[in-house]
Amino acid sequence: MLKFEHPLTEKVRIYLRVEFLLKQLHNSANFETSQSYLIFFRSLFDLMEIFEQIQMKSEIGKDLDKQKLAYKHWIGVPGVDQNKLNTILTDIDTCFKQVMSSERFGVSLKENRFLNSIRQRFNLPGGTCSFDLPALHYWVHLPLEKRLTDAKAWTDTLEPVRMALNLLLRLIRETAQLKPKIARNGFFQSEAEDANILRLHLPVEIGVYPMISGHKNRFAIKFISFETGNAYSQDIEFDLAIC
Amino acid sequence: MLKFEHPLTEKVRIYLRVEFLLKQLHNSANFETSQSYLIFFRSLFDLMEIFEQIQMKSEIGKDLDKQKLAYKHWIGVPGVDQNKLNTILTDIDTCFKQVMSSERFGVSLKENRFLNSIRQRFNLPGGTCSFDLPALHYWVHLPLEKRLTDAKAWTDTLEPVRMALNLLLRLIRETAQLKPKIARNGFFQSEAEDANILRLHLPVEIGVYPMISGHKNRFAIKFISFETGNAYSQDIEFDLAIC
Repeated sequence: MLKFEHPLTEKVRIYLRVEFLLKQLHNSANFETSQSYLIFFRSLFDLMEIFEQIQMKSEIGKDLDKQKLAYKHWIGVPGVDQNKLNTILTDIDTCFKQVMSSERFGVSLKENRFLNSIRQRFNLPGGTCSFDLPALHYWVHLPLEKRLTDAKAWTDTLEPVRMALNLLLRLIRETAQLKPKIARNGFFQSEAEDANILRLHLPVEIGVYPMISGHKNRFAIKFISFETGNAYSQDIEFDLAIC
Repeated sequence: MLKFEHPLTEKVRIYLRVEFLLKQLHNSANFETSQSYLIFFRSLFDLMEIFEQIQMKSEIGKDLDKQKLAYKHWIGVPGVDQNKLNTILTDIDTCFKQVMSSERFGVSLKENRFLNSIRQRFNLPGGTCSFDLPALHYWVHLPLEKRLTDAKAWTDTLEPVRMALNLLLRLIRETAQLKPKIARNGFFQSEAEDANILRLHLPVEIGVYPMISGHKNRFAIKFISFETGNAYSQDIEFDLAIC
């Protein structure tokens, strides 16, 4: 089963991108293969670039605040699991405090001499060669324990944004369930209501992937045949959640 | 033991960079971790960029020819292992024929629709998200066997350059043995004679890495303390080969 997600607002697009990079960062931070460091540093530098371009801290703060207000409406409402509600409200509070008391995301990484000295080369083709980056080559040959300590210190500075995004995106994803749909002649469109994310499941065997366009109130999905690169013209059964 | 290599000509710099990328490509081509594909495609696209900028085929052809002439001088010379010499001459001939009969490196990769469609996004921060590259997301979820077949077809087109560079760089590296040297006050300089590559070995415990400048006839090595980022001012024992 193939799982696709598509953001319907520019802000959520950035949230999903940051979530994706944070996952890459954490999955490579154990340096389990001899190449893991390449993914680790590239994810870290991509995140730093995004955080330099976009002031995410206040955006996330506002979104947590909005969620808090929305969930507060359910306090004392019969039929609503008040334990679960309390947990969510506590989680939101914890994340909000951590985000608000943290530095601008990525600032202390930017001030790190070692990271700064190797960052520029990462965007040149083959720029991570040992002769281009002898300091990196030295670091890669340090004992694993020392590298894990460094990696933890660097990734720890991003914990507030990671936890907040985990929570926000989970709350968004939970707003809707997957429902079976049919794309007639490989095409599907629909209205939406202030939606943030589309989630699609479809079997890999059909041999298609979705091209999605749209915004929070309307979207269209065109399925493309992977083999030909052209629009797929038959009906397709898939599952969709408009979150 | 830390091993550093430094090119002393612009051409060898590119050779080493391509060798490094080809190693990354091959080490990731088994897709052993869920992130290997990121390194695989990035190495492939970096190689394509280098091959677009530089006409490497004729350079490598000329270098193989030069090596052949140099080694031919040893035919029949007493004391020279003629079996080994024959093997080298045969290897040079094989590589030369393969390089000369091959396409311009990377051309067929450039014409591949799938590779072309995902390539541009790879240089954007977080540009490999599933919603940015649904075709890549589809490909990553194909059965391993299919992905290995694709990867082999793509990397096979680069076999002539890989084999030729392996041979050329091996012959260069074998021209000199490592010899113990001392960098007085963390500094070492020397004349060289049409040299191509410096090879350095030094213990990781000293906590330094080399900054090397120079060209084929003269070079200088300054050792830098990793912790402080400043020049190291004590004597350093290291091994050096001027190849």
